[in-house]
Amino acid sequence: MSIRIAAAQINPTVGDLNGNRDKILHAIDSADEMGCDLVCFPELAITGYPPEDLILKEGFVRDARRVLDEIAAAAGDCVVIVGTVVNAQEDGIQVVAANDARHSSGQIFNHPILANVAAVLFRGEVVGFIAKQLLPNYGVFDEQRLFLPGILSDQVFVIAGVPVGVMVCEDLWMEDGPAQDLADGGASVIVSINASPFSVGQGEARFSVISNRAKETNASIVYVNQVGGQDELVFDGSSMVVDQDGKILSNSPSFVEDLLVYDLDISKTDERKLENEIIISEAVRSFSPRVFGFVNPVLSEEAQVYSALVLGLHDYLGKNGFTDVVIGLSGGVDSSAIAAIAVDAIGANHVLGISQPSRYSSDHSRGDAQELADRLGIKMNTIFIEPAHASMTQMIGGVFKDDLKGLTDENLQARIRAVSLMGIANNMERTVVLTTGNRSELAVGYFTLGDSIGGFSTISDVPKTMLFNLCRYRNELAIGRDEIPPIPESVISKPPSAELSPGQEDSDSLPPYDILDPILKAYIEDNLTTSEIVDQGFDFNTVKRVVGLVDSAEFKRRQLPMGIKITSKSFGRDRRMPITNRYRPQI
Amino acid sequence: MSIRIAAAQINPTVGDLNGNRDKILHAIDSADEMGCDLVCFPELAITGYPPEDLILKEGFVRDARRVLDEIAAAAGDCVVIVGTVVNAQEDGIQVVAANDARHSSGQIFNHPILANVAAVLFRGEVVGFIAKQLLPNYGVFDEQRLFLPGILSDQVFVIAGVPVGVMVCEDLWMEDGPAQDLADGGASVIVSINASPFSVGQGEARFSVISNRAKETNASIVYVNQVGGQDELVFDGSSMVVDQDGKILSNSPSFVEDLLVYDLDISKTDERKLENEIIISEAVRSFSPRVFGFVNPVLSEEAQVYSALVLGLHDYLGKNGFTDVVIGLSGGVDSSAIAAIAVDAIGANHVLGISQPSRYSSDHSRGDAQELADRLGIKMNTIFIEPAHASMTQMIGGVFKDDLKGLTDENLQARIRAVSLMGIANNMERTVVLTTGNRSELAVGYFTLGDSIGGFSTISDVPKTMLFNLCRYRNELAIGRDEIPPIPESVISKPPSAELSPGQEDSDSLPPYDILDPILKAYIEDNLTTSEIVDQGFDFNTVKRVVGLVDSAEFKRRQLPMGIKITSKSFGRDRRMPITNRYRPQI
Repeated sequence: MSIRIAAAQINPTVGDLNGNRDKILHAIDSADEMGCDLVCFPELAITGYPPEDLILKEGFVRDARRVLDEIAAAAGDCVVIVGTVVNAQEDGIQVVAANDARHSSGQIFNHPILANVAAVLFRGEVVGFIAKQLLPNYGVFDEQRLFLPGILSDQVFVIAGVPVGVMVCEDLWMEDGPAQDLADGGASVIVSINASPFSVGQGEARFSVISNRAKETNASIVYVNQVGGQDELVFDGSSMVVDQDGKILSNSPSFVEDLLVYDLDISKTDERKLENEIIISEAVRSFSPRVFGFVNPVLSEEAQVYSALVLGLHDYLGKNGFTDVVIGLSGGVDSSAIAAIAVDAIGANHVLGISQPSRYSSDHSRGDAQELADRLGIKMNTIFIEPAHASMTQMIGGVFKDDLKGLTDENLQARIRAVSLMGIANNMERTVVLTTGNRSELAVGYFTLGDSIGGFSTISDVPKTMLFNLCRYRNELAIGRDEIPPIPESVISKPPSAELSPGQEDSDSLPPYDILDPILKAYIEDNLTTSEIVDQGFDFNTVKRVVGLVDSAEFKRRQLPMGIKITSKSFGRDRRMPITNRYRPQI
Repeated sequence: MSIRIAAAQINPTVGDLNGNRDKILHAIDSADEMGCDLVCFPELAITGYPPEDLILKEGFVRDARRVLDEIAAAAGDCVVIVGTVVNAQEDGIQVVAANDARHSSGQIFNHPILANVAAVLFRGEVVGFIAKQLLPNYGVFDEQRLFLPGILSDQVFVIAGVPVGVMVCEDLWMEDGPAQDLADGGASVIVSINASPFSVGQGEARFSVISNRAKETNASIVYVNQVGGQDELVFDGSSMVVDQDGKILSNSPSFVEDLLVYDLDISKTDERKLENEIIISEAVRSFSPRVFGFVNPVLSEEAQVYSALVLGLHDYLGKNGFTDVVIGLSGGVDSSAIAAIAVDAIGANHVLGISQPSRYSSDHSRGDAQELADRLGIKMNTIFIEPAHASMTQMIGGVFKDDLKGLTDENLQARIRAVSLMGIANNMERTVVLTTGNRSELAVGYFTLGDSIGGFSTISDVPKTMLFNLCRYRNELAIGRDEIPPIPESVISKPPSAELSPGQEDSDSLPPYDILDPILKAYIEDNLTTSEIVDQGFDFNTVKRVVGLVDSAEFKRRQLPMGIKITSKSFGRDRRMPITNRYRPQI
């Protein structure tokens, strides 16, 4: 006995209700044509995820509800499970507040009570809603700001004669939680709809959860996840079907849209007593040849991160109506990596490189920038910043008796370059400046406020050591395709330098990146204290200095343009530190 | 029968555990000397509020716990009630998670389970903890990210023979909630410790809540609130004692530190049966002459907002170690208002004005800037931006065949000014640039990315129409003190203009501010739809245009420096809108 299921790994856009509807309708058509009994879509697929405070607009929730009805009207014999938001009161959905307002913890709602639901659709009707019970409110998630939790439920839907439990995202992560309730209610298949963002290591954590839940509940799990970039988040998709022994039967490739179709054999599942069921359909629809699964290999860390950055940049630009980017090319590894990512995201014709040498720029850096541009096939202009540097030095200098300080002069050069890039983007159509700060620099404040402005900050969450690996990865990819490696070897091998004063190197101001990056990971991602980091074998004074730099750079980081989250704790809404903060740990 | 209570309206700094401890110890000494039976401090007074993710550091929570013990050791016969954070497990505090992990909504804690508590201290000991039950997670609040809610409690503390119920902030806001539980438990006085930020209208809302709870529970309420600026929030204090009829008996002035001491008569309160009490002391300590209360008048809206801005700026600078500011003076109302606020906050000797005329600047603007500087007694330098404007036009122009667009040229001037101001601040010690964008401009995106950078954005939440009122208020204040009004009348009366192109006025690009501001309020603060705003009597096309401008300026606003919240919904973490957002309501 088997059931043909489809997991529609789509790339919605937040707020684009009609566009998302059309994507969903298209996938329903495809699944229907392939004889599927069931097609499922990601969490909040109709609104896009995360909708943030947009969802607090009553008009938006009403519009989303109308779109759900339009999708239901188009649903035929293939059952549709799709994520959306509903006004809990209007749709009669029980949420925790209704039972105990105190446990919903004092939310003074000046908007409707909302639930994050999976809607079950069949033959033109909404057959049922399942409200998410566990609302993540940590890291980048603010769901308790927006929704009230659904109440416990053991309700299952009988689809093609198979008892199917349905749940939304976080509900799967709790041992002996909602998944067990559904299994107790008789579910032999659990459909989990998700919007789970990418970060390094998240794939393993996620699979471990899915696999454990399958084994504990002795149910197969259909896991569907959103794909695509939304502001600082990238969703990798990686949808999968897992059997009751916790093994992957079939999965979708990561970082692309996909319709995963699979004939799920449930004959091995023990017969279960149903407690609280809604019968939708008793027999399978399709007797066409069996669909076999395909298990995609796990990508390397570099491949995952590089793909996430390309997709994140592509979607930020495309979904916001931008077509072109301007990048200041210094010949360094940061701007070179970004240029390669941008070319992969939107094509060489849409990337303009600007080289802006100052009196301190080395010939080899200028040569490297040109060589990179040539290899990538992008246009590059050169602007000498000396005239502006001279005139602005004089302007500012008039305020002071003495010569300007060295740091003032360094920052001035960086800011002139930024103003020039912004002016160029201003003068073009639908064009943004990509800023070039990496995570290591941004962590310790090794950047200039005013240089860091621009449209989007592609690599702001990529540690410098990982950036070198990404460049090598991209070059190896080219070699594997018999193409010229885009990033010149000398870009990767020379010592990092801002080139804002004579002979300057990053290592004059900062510990070597292979020391700095692990300290930053321990302090920021793992939240360790100074003494715990020293216990890992790092020098006390180095750790103390790095921690102090991180703490005092908060006000600069707060003004950065958004970047793409790829670590377990990115700057921004993932790590909400006060700027005014006098805490200085003793150790 | 009476009890002498003290409400210590202190100004803590987030993270400054030792500094906050010293402030608390000082107030305990004063209250003790005045023979008080009880002194109470604001919510999270030991850590400062809001601590945000700083509180997720285990070492920080341990350090805060040590400071609590130090304060307890110093507590004598005057009972101390002080807000802090504790590790719920280590201190044996029951939180909701312990009873029902699902209602705590799926938080995957990788940090200790924390409670936001009022600690009761007496003669060197911690006598009890009361955990906050209702954790606000809307607007600027993220408490469900940090804490788990305390369980229901009717426990009261008998202090000087009087049954006193204790609660933290939000718990007071629920009708038939925690306050009623305490009254049912026998409390005739309720001590409410708070960290309640200022916004226009919040004072009335807050008093209404306090008054209603007092009447419903037939208990007197001692309401103590934090004062001071912390990043974008300003706490106004306004602590008060309210009798069981809901009338104010005594209150603290707003926007300053204060120790409010009052002999609270509880002889009118009916005898209550105690259900669950901890007896601390049976008799009052002091028989010294009765302390009479004083009720401060309610400030005008302009006085409240002006005071909030002065305090917010003062504390941001002082708590972050800055001593001086640089302001670009255009002769317009925005920069003039900021200069007046800055002088009131840190003194004229610490404010440097920079006039940066371009080829489009009018003589009267330059004259107004100089007149303002003279009246305020601040130093002003003049820098002509033409040399940099010319050199940068040529640099950027080299990339394009045609002349630069008008908008490119306007933005270039604004950015050159910003780079010049930042360079000047760079070259001074402990100095920041104050940016000059007001809420109306920031709402509709009428500002230049790259001009808007700087250290702090004082008036970013002040609508333009209110700004004119603030200037008039400040001038009247001066007249009342027989001083010269600081802001020249022509600054207030001339039509607003950015002066970036010949004859330019704001009204060429935007609706008049007395139309724009109410539309912005309806859309942003009241969350109304376009059609609901039109129903208020505004022109359809104007409303549609304004709403579109607000929606599309999100990516620019995200890169602004922090400003001071004074409306019910400021930009920033109070209003978390996605940048990538294709929602365009039909109407």
